[in-house]
Amino acid sequence: MFEETYLLPSSHASYDPTKHSQLIKLSQLINELNENVKYLPGIRLPSNILATPDITNAVKDATILVFSVPHQFVSKICDQIQGHNLPYAKAISCIKGVEVSPEGVSLFSDVIGRRLGIYCGALSGANIANEVAQEKFSETTIAYQPPKETPEEQEIPKEYPPIDHATFKTLFHRPYFHVRCISDVAGVSLGGALKNIVALAAGFSDGRGWGDNAKASIMRVGLLEMRKFGKMFFADTCRTSTFTEESCGVADLITSCNGGRNHKCAKMMVTTGKKIEEIEEEVLDGQKLQGTSTAKEVNEFLKMRGLEGEFPLFTAVYSRFSCRVRGRRNANPCLYSRDPQGRVHC
Amino acid sequence: MFEETYLLPSSHASYDPTKHSQLIKLSQLINELNENVKYLPGIRLPSNILATPDITNAVKDATILVFSVPHQFVSKICDQIQGHNLPYAKAISCIKGVEVSPEGVSLFSDVIGRRLGIYCGALSGANIANEVAQEKFSETTIAYQPPKETPEEQEIPKEYPPIDHATFKTLFHRPYFHVRCISDVAGVSLGGALKNIVALAAGFSDGRGWGDNAKASIMRVGLLEMRKFGKMFFADTCRTSTFTEESCGVADLITSCNGGRNHKCAKMMVTTGKKIEEIEEEVLDGQKLQGTSTAKEVNEFLKMRGLEGEFPLFTAVYSRFSCRVRGRRNANPCLYSRDPQGRVHC
Repeated sequence: MFEETYLLPSSHASYDPTKHSQLIKLSQLINELNENVKYLPGIRLPSNILATPDITNAVKDATILVFSVPHQFVSKICDQIQGHNLPYAKAISCIKGVEVSPEGVSLFSDVIGRRLGIYCGALSGANIANEVAQEKFSETTIAYQPPKETPEEQEIPKEYPPIDHATFKTLFHRPYFHVRCISDVAGVSLGGALKNIVALAAGFSDGRGWGDNAKASIMRVGLLEMRKFGKMFFADTCRTSTFTEESCGVADLITSCNGGRNHKCAKMMVTTGKKIEEIEEEVLDGQKLQGTSTAKEVNEFLKMRGLEGEFPLFTAVYSRFSCRVRGRRNANPCLYSRDPQGRVHC
Repeated sequence: MFEETYLLPSSHASYDPTKHSQLIKLSQLINELNENVKYLPGIRLPSNILATPDITNAVKDATILVFSVPHQFVSKICDQIQGHNLPYAKAISCIKGVEVSPEGVSLFSDVIGRRLGIYCGALSGANIANEVAQEKFSETTIAYQPPKETPEEQEIPKEYPPIDHATFKTLFHRPYFHVRCISDVAGVSLGGALKNIVALAAGFSDGRGWGDNAKASIMRVGLLEMRKFGKMFFADTCRTSTFTEESCGVADLITSCNGGRNHKCAKMMVTTGKKIEEIEEEVLDGQKLQGTSTAKEVNEFLKMRGLEGEFPLFTAVYSRFSCRVRGRRNANPCLYSRDPQGRVHC
C-alpha cells in the first residue's frame, strides 16, 4: 500500500512547491510529514513511526509484529514475510473477523501464526478508528496466551525479556486507549466478526421502526448467540466473560449496532426497498459489507452441521438478507408481513 | 389515582354528549371505554381489565397481586392493603428502582412482602411503556423464588395450584412480550435502579461529544459496576448473568443509554450548562430524574462504608452531578478541563 504515489494538495499546511508539486511515494510523504496524508489526513503521527514499502525490511529483527491490514491481504502478506521473521517473534492480529467455510472456522491469528511459524494473539474492541486517531477515549481487548515451554521460546536470546501481558499493555495502553489483556483469542476474534451479523439485525429492526425495546432484545439475543457459537466451536478456550464483559464483546456490539456501516446499510435496505448490492454501491463505493459475508459463511457452516435452529437470530438475518441477494424479493411473502415476535425472520 | 375525575375531550371517538359532558371518575371511564383515556390514550385495553378506586376490593380474594405504581406510593398502598390480602397471595413488583439509604439497600419487593406478610418477586426489563402498549416487541425478566415449605404455603387451599414460573409465564408472556423467569430478585431490582446512574454518565459523554467508543466503554464499565454492587451487597442471591445476559440487565441498560430521560437530561446539562433543576423543570415539568436521586443515595451508602473508590463510575457521576446541584459549578475547575481518560469525573 505504501508504494502508492500521492499528490499532496497545495492546501496542505506543509505543502512546499519545490518538493510536492509531483507524485511522491506515500511512504516517503508519511515519513517526511509524520502524517498519513491519504488514509488518515489531519492526524499527526509520532516521529518514531516509520512507513516502508519493503515488508521484509519492516519485519527484520522485529520481536513483535502487529498486523493491521484489510483481511483480504493477510495471505499475500504472510507469503512475503515468511522466512524473514525472527523464529521467536510474537504477533498480534488487529484484523477484525474470522474466515468461515463450511469446513470450519479459522482465526486470522491462527492463519498468521501457522504461516509464519510463530505465536499470534488478537486485539479487538469498540475502536472506531477515526475516534481512536483523534485520541478520544476508548477501550480495547488484547488476547494473548502463547503455549508454554515451546522449543521456539527456548531459542529466545537472553537479552530479550519474555513477551507477556505486561509487554502488550506497555505497548498499547494510553490514557485515551485503555487495554485489558485476556487469554481467549478465539473469543476476541469471534466477537469482532459475529457482532456484524447482529448489527444487520439491529439495522433491519430500526428500518422497520420496531422501537428501542426490540432493538435491545435483538442485541441481547445476538450477544448470547455469539457466546454460544464460541462455546460450541472453541469449547476449550472460549469464555462467557469475553462476550458479556469485555470491550471486544458487549461494547463493540453496542457501537456497531448504534452507528456502524452494517447497521446503517441494513436499515437502508428496509427503508428504501433496495437490494444490498445497490446500497453497497451507493454508500460504500462498491465495497462489500463484512456482516453480509459473515452471515452467509456462518450460515453455510451451521447448515452443514444441522445447527441452524440453534442460532435463530444468525439464521434469520441470513434468510432475510439472502432473499434480497438472490433477487427473490417478490417470491417471499414474509417480507411484507409484520412479524409479531419482532425477530428478523424473512 | 382512579378516583381522579376527567373530562373526556369531545374529539374522542366514543364521546357521547349525553354522558361525557361533565367530569367523570377516571375508573368509570376506563371500564366504559376500555381505555385509560388520561394516562394511556389511544390504546385499547382488554375488557377483562377492571379499574377500581377501591384497593381493598381490588385485592380481595386475589391470589396474585401485581404492583405497578410510582415508587413513592408503595408505602401508602401497602397501608391500605394490609389485612385485606389473602395470606397465601403472591406478588410481583413492577416498580423500577430500590430504596437506598446510608443504612442499607431495600428492594420494593421486600418492602411489599414484609408489609403484607406475603412473598413478592420482581419484573423488570427493556420495557419502554408506550412501545409495550403499542404491542411492539420487547422482552422482560421476572424474578420469583419464594422460600419453600413456608407455613403460608401449607395454608393454600387445594383448589389453587402452586404459583410458579410457569404461572407467571402464562400470565405475562405474549407473542410481542417475551418473558424469561429467573430466581434473582435482587439482581432484577438493582438492574432497574443502577442503570439510571450509567445512563447519566452516557448522557454526559454524548453531551461532550466524546464519541461512540467512549460511550460503549462507559456502558461496559457501568454494567460491571452494577454487577459488582449486586454481588457485594446481595452476595447470597445475585448472579452475574442477571446483569450481563438478561433483559433487566444489559438490554435495559442499552435502551436507557440510547434514549431514556436520564440520558437525555444529562446530555442537556452538558450542552446547555444549566443546572439539573432547570432541566427537570423544562423537560419533566418539575418531576425529578430517578438517576440523580439514585446516584446520590448510592453514593451516601458507599461513602459510609468507605467503598466509593470501588465504584469509580458511580462515584464520578455523583460528583459531576452534585457540583451542579450545590451551585458550586464555578468552584470546580475540572468541569472545564478535558478528561483524557474519558471518565465522567467532576
